[in-house]
Amino acid sequence: MRALIFDLDGTLVDTVYAHVFAWQRALTEAGFRVEGWKVHRRIGMSGGLFTRAVAREAGRPLSDDEAKSIQARHGSLFRDLLPERRPLPGALLRWLRDAGIPHGIATSGRHPEIDASLAALGVPPETVVIDRGDVLRAKPEPDLFLKCQEQLEVTPADCYVVGDAVWDLLAARRAGMLSVGLLSGGYGWDELMSAGAFRVYRDPADLHRSLDELGIA
Amino acid sequence: MRALIFDLDGTLVDTVYAHVFAWQRALTEAGFRVEGWKVHRRIGMSGGLFTRAVAREAGRPLSDDEAKSIQARHGSLFRDLLPERRPLPGALLRWLRDAGIPHGIATSGRHPEIDASLAALGVPPETVVIDRGDVLRAKPEPDLFLKCQEQLEVTPADCYVVGDAVWDLLAARRAGMLSVGLLSGGYGWDELMSAGAFRVYRDPADLHRSLDELGIA
Repeated sequence: MRALIFDLDGTLVDTVYAHVFAWQRALTEAGFRVEGWKVHRRIGMSGGLFTRAVAREAGRPLSDDEAKSIQARHGSLFRDLLPERRPLPGALLRWLRDAGIPHGIATSGRHPEIDASLAALGVPPETVVIDRGDVLRAKPEPDLFLKCQEQLEVTPADCYVVGDAVWDLLAARRAGMLSVGLLSGGYGWDELMSAGAFRVYRDPADLHRSLDELGIA
Repeated sequence: MRALIFDLDGTLVDTVYAHVFAWQRALTEAGFRVEGWKVHRRIGMSGGLFTRAVAREAGRPLSDDEAKSIQARHGSLFRDLLPERRPLPGALLRWLRDAGIPHGIATSGRHPEIDASLAALGVPPETVVIDRGDVLRAKPEPDLFLKCQEQLEVTPADCYVVGDAVWDLLAARRAGMLSVGLLSGGYGWDELMSAGAFRVYRDPADLHRSLDELGIA
């Protein structure tokens, strides 16, 4: 039986644009000028890789302390900008629970930023949720997905990763998993296909309507 | 000689993500739930078309008064979210002025939202700027570009439109003009090519380095 491993931000909850805005503001405050579209295209990466990548782009080095401080400021701005978390359309997780189909969540985000999102989705305690704190390296490294697959007690070849960012899809390939791209994070169709997506859908509701295409009954 | 007609938001100034966030919040306050990526993909349209389109998507009708009130609220939130306007990389407009190459700006935005952007770019009073208030219909109608071309005293066939949104590129085709897409508004390369872009560059600085490809000396 196929299992589904979901990314969180931009895949299950509509948070990408608040993340872009919060990152851009936190970086500006720290003296790094990075354009919105470049921030957007790096959302979903490990926060550490993200801050190092934008610092390199901005042309000046970044200390570990500075990176940590920018990440903390991002988290605080994000919670201020988006006190309410809004699930993306559909009730796919509930359907998977009712149908007994193995599934989990694997996110580069961390507590406490992700707590409100999990609550808004009504994720019960028995659902496997792997976050940044559970692994040494986040996306585009495959560790988050591999840890989720282990806890689901399925093989990588039995998993689909569902994500909105190329980092999800690249990490899925490195984990030996097929992947499904969603447009709900603001990437274009071709960007997701070029990163190796097996199929691309609009959002979780569109994926739900298309599960037959994936061999999930 | 070729002339260049520029879109403003996402093309010359880094404002798209603040617009997305402001529109989404204004719509939420008015009871319309629309996901961020759908807002993003409609930025650059006429505000009137935009509000009607999202209302249709949300499944309930929208009165003219309600549309005006949402647009006004968007403007106010936008100014609060982004008090400082940041030009996208490059100094292309100044170079065009110095080189005597005809160029103008044609935007679906309106005063006072666009004033700070024009000031941040250092646009002098003699530059042709056509805004929403100057025409009956904004993008994707071709009126803004046609009015700009008239004031530049060039023919449509002599103009390149430069824009970050598919609405710019579609309006350019309807105006009989070639167009150049920029990634700086967060659309993907293929989305811009599919909308008819003659060429796609990353941002104004990348366009500047590539003017030879367009036959602009």
